[in-house]
Amino acid sequence: MKQICVGGEAIGHPGRPLICTSVTGKTRSSILGEMAAIVPKAPDLIEWRVDLFEGVGDIATVIDLATEIKAAAHAIPIVFAFRTINEGGGANALNEADILKLYVAACASRCVDIIDYEMSNASTNVAMLRQVSASNGVTMIMSYHNHETTPDREELMGQFSHAERLGADVAKVVVMPRSAADVVSLLEVTQTADSLGGIPVVAVAMGGVGALSRVFGWMFGSTVTFAAGKSRPAPGQMSIKELRSVLNSVCNAVQGG
Amino acid sequence: MKQICVGGEAIGHPGRPLICTSVTGKTRSSILGEMAAIVPKAPDLIEWRVDLFEGVGDIATVIDLATEIKAAAHAIPIVFAFRTINEGGGANALNEADILKLYVAACASRCVDIIDYEMSNASTNVAMLRQVSASNGVTMIMSYHNHETTPDREELMGQFSHAERLGADVAKVVVMPRSAADVVSLLEVTQTADSLGGIPVVAVAMGGVGALSRVFGWMFGSTVTFAAGKSRPAPGQMSIKELRSVLNSVCNAVQGG
Repeated sequence: MKQICVGGEAIGHPGRPLICTSVTGKTRSSILGEMAAIVPKAPDLIEWRVDLFEGVGDIATVIDLATEIKAAAHAIPIVFAFRTINEGGGANALNEADILKLYVAACASRCVDIIDYEMSNASTNVAMLRQVSASNGVTMIMSYHNHETTPDREELMGQFSHAERLGADVAKVVVMPRSAADVVSLLEVTQTADSLGGIPVVAVAMGGVGALSRVFGWMFGSTVTFAAGKSRPAPGQMSIKELRSVLNSVCNAVQGG
Repeated sequence: MKQICVGGEAIGHPGRPLICTSVTGKTRSSILGEMAAIVPKAPDLIEWRVDLFEGVGDIATVIDLATEIKAAAHAIPIVFAFRTINEGGGANALNEADILKLYVAACASRCVDIIDYEMSNASTNVAMLRQVSASNGVTMIMSYHNHETTPDREELMGQFSHAERLGADVAKVVVMPRSAADVVSLLEVTQTADSLGGIPVVAVAMGGVGALSRVFGWMFGSTVTFAAGKSRPAPGQMSIKELRSVLNSVCNAVQGG
């Protein structure tokens, strides 16, 4: 398992996955309320799902709130993530050009540490944002989400490879498994991607059986695992405290403790 | 995942693996000391590794102690297990005929609930013990252990099928993985064996990476997982309390809590 770098420095501990929690509020006050609840639990990363924010249509409003989120997070790195409707995001009127402007503004303001951008966007947009994020010292995750199914191994491997070819700092693949076998497919491909590729990888299988990927994904190279924040856990998810406890037990057992 | 029956009744809870702990002492007093330490922690099964007992050469001594163990266990079912040197057991002078006599005496005394007998024994001995255990109401696990490696999928599947053909109540396969991929192989075969076969299965991958099988084996049909008893945990193992906590978190997450 590789380590993710933020501001040029590796974060977290070697051999341990980072615990990331999402902030999913609609209003400024609910978002800041989530931050106040989450920060004391000390996740390694906080992902702001900006597509769910009611003010997402106004760049200045988004950047103001991002600045408040950054201040509330203290040293915890912030991941700025706009999930499109096609990849499971919130309903809003933004088109790809609007979303790109939002990402560019977030990088330029330097109020986010990491951006998570979907590879399904136009390759010229991906390339442009790669350049903007790099020149502002912002780490770039390139991601693929499939909320319907788990594609075959070739397709999964293709997504990891594609991210690396596009110049990502981190390649992320999120799928919906139909069975434990689907989770195993994802994990085996993740291990191959981690061993053959040059960048850190993240793999998430959603849903109940996906819990396997949240607890043991790190053993196959996945650098980040997601815990529930203030809202009710999704199927397969645990709270930060619970996931940390499980990971401590499991990592110690694997490492011979 | 099927359920194991003891005395004709399914034990444990549907969808949850049984936690089993081994008693590994050499002397009567250390064995009873282990029982006193383990029973309050309420594992679902206690396995007595009789091959490690210094008095194993005398049948009456073994049966006396088995009776004391049974009394100390209260309602926790006892698994009587003699592991031969070839399959990772303790050094002692007993040959296959002696071991068989010990198992027969244990069944006849009815001071054990379950016996765990190696399939590598002569088929006539397996058949005889199958009959004796059944007529005494003792559940019979037929087991395969490989402390060196993880055989290929065909061989693993063959072991599960062989146990069922021999009339086992439970088929158990224990291997040493060299990688996470080996653990995945075992789990996938276990799932196939569970879905195709008619009896409960148990799968254990030992060592550090094997922790994956101890925590998620149940999702692939494995009905029993092993926790450390009074002695120091083996690599990949957790204490009863720790494993129970991890399984609670993981089972709830998988089942959508």
